[in-house]
Amino acid sequence: MIDQVDEFEAYRSKMNNKLLNDNNKVIKRILNLDTNSFSEGALGSETKELLGLVASLVLKCDDCVKYHIESSHKSGWKKEQIVEAMSIGTLIGGTIIIPHLRKAYDYLEQVEEKYGKN
Amino acid sequence: MIDQVDEFEAYRSKMNNKLLNDNNKVIKRILNLDTNSFSEGALGSETKELLGLVASLVLKCDDCVKYHIESSHKSGWKKEQIVEAMSIGTLIGGTIIIPHLRKAYDYLEQVEEKYGKN
Amino acid sequence: MIDQVDEFEAYRSKMNNKLLNDNNKVIKRILNLDTNSFSEGALGSETKELLGLVASLVLKCDDCVKYHIESSHKSGWKKEQIVEAMSIGTLIGGTIIIPHLRKAYDYLEQVEEKYGKN
Amino acid sequence: MIDQVDEFEAYRSKMNNKLLNDNNKVIKRILNLDTNSFSEGALGSETKELLGLVASLVLKCDDCVKYHIESSHKSGWKKEQIVEAMSIGTLIGGTIIIPHLRKAYDYLEQVEEKYGKN
Amino acid sequence: MIDQVDEFEAYRSKMNNKLLNDNNKVIKRILNLDTNSFSEGALGSETKELLGLVASLVLKCDDCVKYHIESSHKSGWKKEQIVEAMSIGTLIGGTIIIPHLRKAYDYLEQVEEKYGKN
Amino acid sequence: MIDQVDEFEAYRSKMNNKLLNDNNKVIKRILNLDTNSFSEGALGSETKELLGLVASLVLKCDDCVKYHIESSHKSGWKKEQIVEAMSIGTLIGGTIIIPHLRKAYDYLEQVEEKYGKN
Repeated sequence: MIDQVDEFEAYRSKMNNKLLNDNNKVIKRILNLDTNSFSEGALGSETKELLGLVASLVLKCDDCVKYHIESSHKSGWKKEQIVEAMSIGTLIGGTIIIPHLRKAYDYLEQVEEKYGKN
Repeated sequence: MIDQVDEFEAYRSKMNNKLLNDNNKVIKRILNLDTNSFSEGALGSETKELLGLVASLVLKCDDCVKYHIESSHKSGWKKEQIVEAMSIGTLIGGTIIIPHLRKAYDYLEQVEEKYGKN
Repeated sequence: MIDQVDEFEAYRSKMNNKLLNDNNKVIKRILNLDTNSFSEGALGSETKELLGLVASLVLKCDDCVKYHIESSHKSGWKKEQIVEAMSIGTLIGGTIIIPHLRKAYDYLEQVEEKYGKN
Repeated sequence: MIDQVDEFEAYRSKMNNKLLNDNNKVIKRILNLDTNSFSEGALGSETKELLGLVASLVLKCDDCVKYHIESSHKSGWKKEQIVEAMSIGTLIGGTIIIPHLRKAYDYLEQVEEKYGKN
Repeated sequence: MIDQVDEFEAYRSKMNNKLLNDNNKVIKRILNLDTNSFSEGALGSETKELLGLVASLVLKCDDCVKYHIESSHKSGWKKEQIVEAMSIGTLIGGTIIIPHLRKAYDYLEQVEEKYGKN
Repeated sequence: MIDQVDEFEAYRSKMNNKLLNDNNKVIKRILNLDTNSFSEGALGSETKELLGLVASLVLKCDDCVKYHIESSHKSGWKKEQIVEAMSIGTLIGGTIIIPHLRKAYDYLEQVEEKYGKN
């Protein structure tokens, strides 16, 4: 069985490196801003991860959801807390979010299997 | 050759069960509301299926489209009627809908092959 | 009190004429296609109006919603049927649809006041 | 000068009552679910308000943003925390979010003026 | 009659200043990146203005459309070229774009009236 | 290794033929309009290809992006110009565009490998 978590990370990492090595400065700055904006600030970084997760879910960005599920888990959030955050996204974004929620829930279980439960 | 209809149904069903067995009440209620809202009312349930199909198509939700194509077919709509509904969605949602229309048309033919034409 | 129905129609009509009198052929064809695609076909034109309404609602296009509410009413649909169609759009599109539903419901009441109930 | 906060609340309240007094059960349940889902749970209700705010912002729902700015403020969040949440939404949703951010920032200042700073 | 062009510019400018004077660094960087990314590069800045216009139109961001219509006009594009760019956006984004196209066309005529035709 | 460019073209072509052979006139006209609208006009066809690319990217339509990357390349645009166009789309559409940008960049490299660099 393919490790979905590893597979996702590998492609993401390979392509981000290509984008960072390209000469385009706007893309480079956006990628850097993306990394920096989730660090500790007026809000704790763990809260920001949940914000990133819900925003990604309502915008139906499966890859962004995967990324923020993994980092939300690494921030210490428990499964029921991550699911509760996603329930708000599903209510706000409607039933078209459900297929993305199914994949997200699936991925969350794989992250827990790989890195352990919080 | 993989039966796309079965494969879709199996994953959808497996993950919906996981979501319903999770403790999150908001998700549970949304899933139940989703099932109930397409039943007979001021509008016939077959009309509601087409509404669900077109809404799913313009929101580019391939899995929702698959689900509503199958249930529209089971409601008795003929291929040309389902395609006509989708043509309205394509006009309203623009040419970015076309890739989703291609997949939807493909799936509709598989549903007809599996369950027979109306 | 301003007649919202008249005001909407007047601006829509004025600007559509400008667009049709412009030399751009693509815009002209899209506007014509828009008019033609809701006529009787494999589906009845009244069914197509509801499809247009729900697609417009989930895409949060207030002006399109107004247009299709008026034409759905003129097609003979009753208030409870139009509201039921919109309830499906709200479920599929999520709670961000509610502000658009509020305006749509308001407009529907004004259309009924102007043209009478079905 | 019109009190934007009062004006928004009055229309929202008037139309929600109309929707709740209509016979449509699906809409009624969605409105109730909307109220219930932001209460204390695995996550604190104040965290959920920020999640609602960011989801509303990236989906460009000005009225939803207004609502969640007011309730985030009432939950005790400071201006800089609310702005930080919105900065994440702006990064994720892109520069098309900026016009909505301008209105949101404007509204936040009016909420602070009306109810005091946290 | 209110000068829509001035009114739009005044509010945009007032609120952008507030956002830039706020302490949030992410918002500041996004606003700066927005300004810089339309300057001359591998593509001419006038081409980039059209790209910004079409992206804004398909994302239904009326304020972004106004901004890029004005700067496209200042870049030297003629009305028929700006309209042709918008016709592509309308085809790709579908008929829900039409209400935004109507406002955009209206604004373009006001920009031409204020600053002269190209 | 599968040739992604060929695979994409083959499925697109097969399904477009099915759609054109179906009796639905609205779909047929939209497909034809799609082909015609990118031809030489007030704007050069190569400029229109970039407009189509950026609109497709911000609407997160991966298949549309693939199509316009290939035709932008065939129009003579260099990699750095295509990437610059996409950088504007990423800024306007936000970080949720990044996963689509990764796939687009990947596809652009495959197109260059297959057809040579400009």
